[in-house]
Amino acid sequence: SSIVLLPGDGIGPEIVEQARLVLLKVAERFGHTFDFSSHQIGGIAIDETGDPLPQPTIDACRNAAAILLGAVGGPKWDDPSAKTRPEAGLLKIRKELGLFANLRPIKLFDELADASPLRADIVKGTDILFFRELTGGIYFGESGTSGSGEEETAFQSMTYSVSEVKRIVRMAAQAARGRSNRLTSVDKANVLEPSRLWRRVAAEVMANEFADVQYDVVLVDSMAMHLINRPSEFDVVVTGNMFGDILTDEASMLPGSLGMLPSASLGDGGPGLYEPIHGSAPDIAGKSVANPLATILAAAMMLRHSLGLTEEAEAIEKAVAGVITDGLRTPDLARGDQSKSVSTEEMGAAVVAKLA
Amino acid sequence: SSIVLLPGDGIGPEIVEQARLVLLKVAERFGHTFDFSSHQIGGIAIDETGDPLPQPTIDACRNAAAILLGAVGGPKWDDPSAKTRPEAGLLKIRKELGLFANLRPIKLFDELADASPLRADIVKGTDILFFRELTGGIYFGESGTSGSGEEETAFQSMTYSVSEVKRIVRMAAQAARGRSNRLTSVDKANVLEPSRLWRRVAAEVMANEFADVQYDVVLVDSMAMHLINRPSEFDVVVTGNMFGDILTDEASMLPGSLGMLPSASLGDGGPGLYEPIHGSAPDIAGKSVANPLATILAAAMMLRHSLGLTEEAEAIEKAVAGVITDGLRTPDLARGDQSKSVSTEEMGAAVVAKLA
Ligand SMILES: CC(C)[C@H](C(=O)O)[C@@H](O)C(=O)O
Ligand SMILES: CC(C)[C@H](C(=O)O)[C@@H](O)C(=O)O
Repeated sequence: SSIVLLPGDGIGPEIVEQARLVLLKVAERFGHTFDFSSHQIGGIAIDETGDPLPQPTIDACRNAAAILLGAVGGPKWDDPSAKTRPEAGLLKIRKELGLFANLRPIKLFDELADASPLRADIVKGTDILFFRELTGGIYFGESGTSGSGEEETAFQSMTYSVSEVKRIVRMAAQAARGRSNRLTSVDKANVLEPSRLWRRVAAEVMANEFADVQYDVVLVDSMAMHLINRPSEFDVVVTGNMFGDILTDEASMLPGSLGMLPSASLGDGGPGLYEPIHGSAPDIAGKSVANPLATILAAAMMLRHSLGLTEEAEAIEKAVAGVITDGLRTPDLARGDQSKSVSTEEMGAAVVAKLA
Repeated sequence: SSIVLLPGDGIGPEIVEQARLVLLKVAERFGHTFDFSSHQIGGIAIDETGDPLPQPTIDACRNAAAILLGAVGGPKWDDPSAKTRPEAGLLKIRKELGLFANLRPIKLFDELADASPLRADIVKGTDILFFRELTGGIYFGESGTSGSGEEETAFQSMTYSVSEVKRIVRMAAQAARGRSNRLTSVDKANVLEPSRLWRRVAAEVMANEFADVQYDVVLVDSMAMHLINRPSEFDVVVTGNMFGDILTDEASMLPGSLGMLPSASLGDGGPGLYEPIHGSAPDIAGKSVANPLATILAAAMMLRHSLGLTEEAEAIEKAVAGVITDGLRTPDLARGDQSKSVSTEEMGAAVVAKLA
């Protein structure tokens, strides 16, 4: 299968390289052939082509079985007056490939539980799978400015259509069936017209097609509260683009180790995009201290969702759990005990060794 | 001074009554006259007039020195197909009175710190004052629907103008000067046009008028993370209506006792609106178990911000701190130890006694 690597900026290249080595080991052990090609995205693409998502990258992604992304962005490209920014590449690839569903599993590693900022009794047992709508909502709504001086006004429109809501709710409900069979939809229907449409359509889909799935609805402000004081009560959560951006980042704090969290962005059929949820961490780039495990876990999600290789995905996940149980820690995980911490390459090699 | 009471729904009437008794005691002790009148808002107003904010309520509010609100809403009025809903009354009064700034202090009571869902070492020292923009943004943007069937689409527009941003940033920066002199502005300028305007205008205001205030900018998704893993690093935070709704509710979990958090909604000059941040809690309404302290603390904010009675406000705050130190707990605060919990009326009376 052909896999496109988009290393991107900051620590992106280092962590994607470790994931590639892990995938090579999986190929060897299970007798597969993965065909890797690397392409540009983000700040480095701006530097070299002026475009955060050059056409050759888009073409390569379209023809791939799956895409593994590192991270994009950094202070170098943060000038607010710049013509384009690294993040534009990310938004564009989502839209170009129709990646309308962003899956973010939030699950605690028991051995790392004391890194959580939440009390152990509250966070214990947390295991949420978020489905964030990724190609609609206010992110891609009409925008502009009008007027001048004190009256200068900027706007951007949040929109949702029936078909957009249906497909993401269906995907989330389907996933709930394979888990604890519970789905929570998050909206702001007491204030927003698109949320009212979302709520109505989601309820219809659930009643007509998923009557067996336990279903409830929570307002986004309440959900921001529940994630802190009773996170373990949720199973699958589905929500729009903007609310999903905020809530999944909030939830990503719960396990206490951002460096362990992968995500998948899926469309209808075509290639999926897999990436760690953390950023490009320019301050530690090139120092061999970045944690590659989130990217390695993203590679596992890729095997499962885009290549149908469930056993192989589980092997990677088991290997990652194994190195954590063995006590291996990159500096971000080591906290008080930096003396024993391992490098990016050592961590990757340890996962590869577990797979042997 | 004339004070309008809007008890509203659920526990609203019980808690507003305790705040009224506290204000009466303050009037007696400090030699003031407060003129109270009660008016309808929310579900009860819908039941009796068909309108969640009847005209006589608006008129009374306009002529008042300040307004003390209980809470609105409840399952009785939750029917999504209803013509109007209690929350509409809340949104309308904000707009009618031009209450563009919602102030929400998030501060830990040391004695209640173990109720926080966060680890003690993380939450310790948290003392944030949020300024949420309250009469603009997507809450009041143009909205509607178009198309039908699968293509039916709903929209609502987020807008911000230069003058809207200026006035709230100024108010927040002014408040920062009276505290730790630090202001954080939260936006989503990497995606939203109104956030880009917000960011630009806020930076101008800060550079031109508040160069002495330490100023920084954080993306809303990052802020949702920071509130969980380093809440004690923030002083004053200013943000738009929607982001403020989500972030202030998230932050309200930190102290572990929703029943202790007041808020103020202020405009330019006219009467301010004061309320607890918790809801109408219909499940415990009429049972004398509701915690009146958030409403009593809202009354203290009212004395400070609308009536200029700083000493009186501090007296109430000291009395509330005193009853907490004495160990008085309504059931929501009592946790493991319900046997010793006091009623709504006992809690109110204890605060009154402290003021004597
Ligand atoms: C970089 C930014 C545009 C992006 C988003 O808001 O979607 C990021 O926060 C994410 O969640 O992937
Ligand atoms: C009831 C609702 C309309 C309101 C809001 O979203 O503003 C509430 O959540 C609040 O924060 O006061």
